[in-house]
Amino acid sequence: MDQTKKIAVIGGGSWATAIVKMLCENLDTVYWYMRSDYAIEHIKRNDHNPNYLSSVEFKVDQLHLSSDINEIISLADLCIFAVPSAFVYKELENLTVSLKDKIIFSAIKGIVPETGLIVGEHFHEHYDIEFENIGVLTGPCHAEEVALERLSYLTIACADEVKAKFLAERIESDYIKCKISDDIIGTEYAAMLKNIYAIAAGIAHGLGYGDNFQSVLMSNAIREMKRFIKKVHKMKRNINDSAYLGDLLVTGYSGFSRNRLFGNMLGKGYTVRSAQMEMSMVAEGYYATKSAFKINEEKGAKTPILDAVYSILYDNKNPKKVFKKLADKLD
Amino acid sequence: MDQTKKIAVIGGGSWATAIVKMLCENLDTVYWYMRSDYAIEHIKRNDHNPNYLSSVEFKVDQLHLSSDINEIISLADLCIFAVPSAFVYKELENLTVSLKDKIIFSAIKGIVPETGLIVGEHFHEHYDIEFENIGVLTGPCHAEEVALERLSYLTIACADEVKAKFLAERIESDYIKCKISDDIIGTEYAAMLKNIYAIAAGIAHGLGYGDNFQSVLMSNAIREMKRFIKKVHKMKRNINDSAYLGDLLVTGYSGFSRNRLFGNMLGKGYTVRSAQMEMSMVAEGYYATKSAFKINEEKGAKTPILDAVYSILYDNKNPKKVFKKLADKLD
Repeated sequence: MDQTKKIAVIGGGSWATAIVKMLCENLDTVYWYMRSDYAIEHIKRNDHNPNYLSSVEFKVDQLHLSSDINEIISLADLCIFAVPSAFVYKELENLTVSLKDKIIFSAIKGIVPETGLIVGEHFHEHYDIEFENIGVLTGPCHAEEVALERLSYLTIACADEVKAKFLAERIESDYIKCKISDDIIGTEYAAMLKNIYAIAAGIAHGLGYGDNFQSVLMSNAIREMKRFIKKVHKMKRNINDSAYLGDLLVTGYSGFSRNRLFGNMLGKGYTVRSAQMEMSMVAEGYYATKSAFKINEEKGAKTPILDAVYSILYDNKNPKKVFKKLADKLD
Repeated sequence: MDQTKKIAVIGGGSWATAIVKMLCENLDTVYWYMRSDYAIEHIKRNDHNPNYLSSVEFKVDQLHLSSDINEIISLADLCIFAVPSAFVYKELENLTVSLKDKIIFSAIKGIVPETGLIVGEHFHEHYDIEFENIGVLTGPCHAEEVALERLSYLTIACADEVKAKFLAERIESDYIKCKISDDIIGTEYAAMLKNIYAIAAGIAHGLGYGDNFQSVLMSNAIREMKRFIKKVHKMKRNINDSAYLGDLLVTGYSGFSRNRLFGNMLGKGYTVRSAQMEMSMVAEGYYATKSAFKINEEKGAKTPILDAVYSILYDNKNPKKVFKKLADKLD
């Protein structure tokens, strides 16, 4: 594989900013698309992203910044998508250049709401990209801790191991370790499902359940995740690997998680709409819950936690009553 | 099975106090041994244990209290031991009555330091009690949350399912759910190993590692626990059940855990001795680490986390250096 392939990051949020930082440890140039011209000008003048991880200082001569997604993608060989899943569909509508010969890595932890597909599948079905050119970059990893250069472990999944290794070598540094995986479907579903379980953890906390219950909830969640993923894509995987269990834990037990915060507000009595307005954003897990529920209507895995969260988010059910019933199903 | 069997709790600490509270929801009389005559008098006069979970109010006419262990054991058919593992050997030396026809449940999360055995094995080998009369009562469960009547899930393990069910029915209440298991060896080793991993979590925190690392550590810990327990006692078990993974999480992520606190102090630079003096107690995991390490010298499971903690506690190795090496072995 050509070792000089150029790498682009698509997105201006905290996870995109963290990925650019990681790549800057190893590359002379990182191609970086973000929507906001203001943010780009700010980075050029002040060496940091004004909106996210602003403690991270960049060397601007390492960055090729643009608010033109076509410019950035046409310059790059490997594109890492790190926009919120709710925006990926719209961002891609702006494309005039072809993605056909690109290697696409998804760092998006969720589902494309418009198609109900995980991001890899979306690229495969709608942009005709072969699975061996599709990969996933996943945690467990809070962007905030990358900013602090706290030791973190990423999993880079790709059906083509050479491409996974290529990216892993460019991401690894003193504070980042990478593991290679060939489970692009499972790791991406895990990254999406964990947001639903983080909402569940938040609801439980908001309702006044304690740490004992939380640990039982997480123990049930990982078993549920295993059942779900097995139905969607059966292959040999250890669900207790960091990309699955670790990612669940870092989100479920996190103070940073917006999904957990969203759930917490629901547990405390906010309606779905008022919680979303209060947060002035929609948590990834909100869409993930609907998509996972729909997928599972066909697949039929036993998913009491997913079902409970779905009934609260989309059937307007009372969280207290739903969790009382859920508690009887956990063990 | 005779449904009128009498139940005794041996121990005066927070976990013993929580168990007595749970039993008082269902029984007319609970037999309760504790060493301290002062505490007994205090409970009789003021309806609560002066030293532990003092918010829990007892109805004194439900309690048969005594500081004479022989009196309590001779009156009971089923004895739940809930003293710290460091004291169980000495407490048992005071016995003059026979344990031969008793059903013994261990709620002790650790190893008997004098014999290096888990408590069930200790009773089996040193008191000639058949395994079908030995059981384990395990979490995930902080006693403090039982005091608050927060929903908690216990696992009651016994080779004889009838006895496990008998106890489960007397423990269950509005806020306690019980699961039955036949894995008395595995659940007890899990309860002991989790304290070692809680020390590891504490050391990592003390050294400045963040949440990303912590989730990877726990994800590796559950895989290590599975390997260890499989070597010691091979049977079909789901390591992600609450009694194993849940118990690991509630301790590893806990602010209550004394083992985690102990580890945290080591990570911050305290010596083992000074951390123990500062805490004015020895954390269960301190003994567990030595015993587990010795057992594993024979069994040969891959246990990098256990080995790291052992080298810090017993070989006086530098936590920072040890964890730097450990980090390379995790994934």
